[in-house]
Amino acid sequence: VFAELETPAVLVDVDVLDRNLTGMAERARAAGVRLRPHAKTHKTAQVAGRQRAAGATGLSVAKTGEAEAFADAGFDDLFVAYPVVGADKGRRLLALHDRIRLAVGADSVEGAETLARVFAGAGRTLDVVLKIDVGLHRVGVLPEHAAAVARQIADQPGLRLTGIFTHAGHAYGGQTPDAVAAVARDEGRTMATVAEALRAAGLPIATVSVGSTPTARDSMVVPGVTECRPGNYVFHDRTQVALGTCRLEDCALTVLATVVSVPADSRAVVDAGSKVLSSDPLRPRPDGHGLVLGTRTTVARLSEEHGVLEVAPGDRFRVGERVLILPNHACVVTNLQDRIWTVSGGQVLEPWSLIARGRVQ
Amino acid sequence: VFAELETPAVLVDVDVLDRNLTGMAERARAAGVRLRPHAKTHKTAQVAGRQRAAGATGLSVAKTGEAEAFADAGFDDLFVAYPVVGADKGRRLLALHDRIRLAVGADSVEGAETLARVFAGAGRTLDVVLKIDVGLHRVGVLPEHAAAVARQIADQPGLRLTGIFTHAGHAYGGQTPDAVAAVARDEGRTMATVAEALRAAGLPIATVSVGSTPTARDSMVVPGVTECRPGNYVFHDRTQVALGTCRLEDCALTVLATVVSVPADSRAVVDAGSKVLSSDPLRPRPDGHGLVLGTRTTVARLSEEHGVLEVAPGDRFRVGERVLILPNHACVVTNLQDRIWTVSGGQVLEPWSLIARGRVQ
Repeated sequence: VFAELETPAVLVDVDVLDRNLTGMAERARAAGVRLRPHAKTHKTAQVAGRQRAAGATGLSVAKTGEAEAFADAGFDDLFVAYPVVGADKGRRLLALHDRIRLAVGADSVEGAETLARVFAGAGRTLDVVLKIDVGLHRVGVLPEHAAAVARQIADQPGLRLTGIFTHAGHAYGGQTPDAVAAVARDEGRTMATVAEALRAAGLPIATVSVGSTPTARDSMVVPGVTECRPGNYVFHDRTQVALGTCRLEDCALTVLATVVSVPADSRAVVDAGSKVLSSDPLRPRPDGHGLVLGTRTTVARLSEEHGVLEVAPGDRFRVGERVLILPNHACVVTNLQDRIWTVSGGQVLEPWSLIARGRVQ
Repeated sequence: VFAELETPAVLVDVDVLDRNLTGMAERARAAGVRLRPHAKTHKTAQVAGRQRAAGATGLSVAKTGEAEAFADAGFDDLFVAYPVVGADKGRRLLALHDRIRLAVGADSVEGAETLARVFAGAGRTLDVVLKIDVGLHRVGVLPEHAAAVARQIADQPGLRLTGIFTHAGHAYGGQTPDAVAAVARDEGRTMATVAEALRAAGLPIATVSVGSTPTARDSMVVPGVTECRPGNYVFHDRTQVALGTCRLEDCALTVLATVVSVPADSRAVVDAGSKVLSSDPLRPRPDGHGLVLGTRTTVARLSEEHGVLEVAPGDRFRVGERVLILPNHACVVTNLQDRIWTVSGGQVLEPWSLIARGRVQ
């Protein structure tokens, strides 16, 4: 299969990709919310362009460097969905602000101040969106503290508070689709309630933004939500299948690998290890590092250049054979390569450059 | 600290690096074995050059693409310590063979045949080293099957069997330094025994090569071992400290990060997530994803751009503060960046390009 490609290689089925893109865009339209997909999943101008063509308002990114990469590629409405901190980052955001529509996340007065000083010093104003913690307990302010922090951020010269955003990443721990949906509804309702409270305190909250692929369907329909920022939905992965977010045939990204060793009947080894699949565990329950498509065999262990298959009863692999592996987490796979190869109907089309790979600063 | 660098950034203390380099070189000299360090850890021409200057015979790499990167950088004695399979890889190895001294691993007749055909077709001979499984149970032939496989590989036109090699990676599961040392002694003895058996069968085994940083000290001194291939020792990491291979002050590679959020007294978040630290677990016992140096606080959870610190009693972090993190596994950290920054005595020196990053093919 795909004999013209050397392995390991990352493939994206563009037919599945386009179906995923269109489906989410239609869902957002039906819900009456703006779609601002997170570009960290695909890291490519080509997918971002298809998202825009399907109706996306703009893109979300995680880091200043990702914003620079997509601004360079012609995307002019970007939200850095991260509590950016530091004058060095502030200066780069100021340069970006010269050429695109830009908003940046914040979750503390101290952090926002480091950007405010740079923008106020230049006589400019940066749009800031406050991060709310709806239960992931990673970053973000708790709903009960939102009004106080929002007021102090809004009062800083150089900043304009325009909205609130969240990421209900704890949905990835949901053991059933119903549990995931409950997290999603709570995400939407909490955000709508916080927005109302801030408005009652005199803060002009325009954007109420929710995120995540597993919760998108149920959180974007909650009244009061204005924007949705899913990322993974363009490719999906083994974790989304395990969560019940999608079916196996909705997964667009796979890893093409070669069996390099079959040391025992129960063990085969492929040339894709953690440097291709990443060592991210399956969510919501750990179960190896990938599924060999068309088989019941999983990648049971990884080292950097070895994927060790625990061969399921009835499956058999031979040295030199090529296999397609569905990875646990697509977003990290695209951070490990310089390009992905598009395919359609079993044919290789073209490479797409991962322009935002490694842009962690 | 290191105010001129943006975060997250990967730092290498060159004084510690040089001490690690020299120590291993002296140990190999004292043991009378050749040192062929694995370049996958550092991926840089600068460290490889220092290894050569300290007396290394050549380099080990894992993939054909890594060999190409180091050949391009002027390194002319390379061993691809991996069961390379496929005519496409064979053609690239043939091109490399034109310009450097090259040897390649093999662990199956079928796999070796894919390279043999290419070399025999060109009227050339590739040096092949047979991989032995001394207990990791990843790739490699079991000692009892070595003679039969070695004979069939040696008989193929286009190949010359020159030795045997192994990697005792199961040492990383060793719960005490004594357990690690026992694995190392067993590694050396098993390899010496297999080499004798192959020689008795008429196979001219010149190279008996052992590997791994935790086992190097005790395996290289076993009579009959001729070569050692440690990789991680140049940088060390939190796993080597946990295994007892080195002390904290022997770790040369750290991650400079900024605290971007302190949402609770017990939780702080830094801008280095799995895209910098990788999600590799600590060995031999899982315990988060990194240690904040100078504190008792660990990186308890990771997402792609967030490292969540579980703040230890008595430690305190503030937004905007910079911290140095010791990662679990240095070799994967260098696969996630384009460069590392050398430092000495608290000063930043220069960036070194990670020329072999992402060379998984």
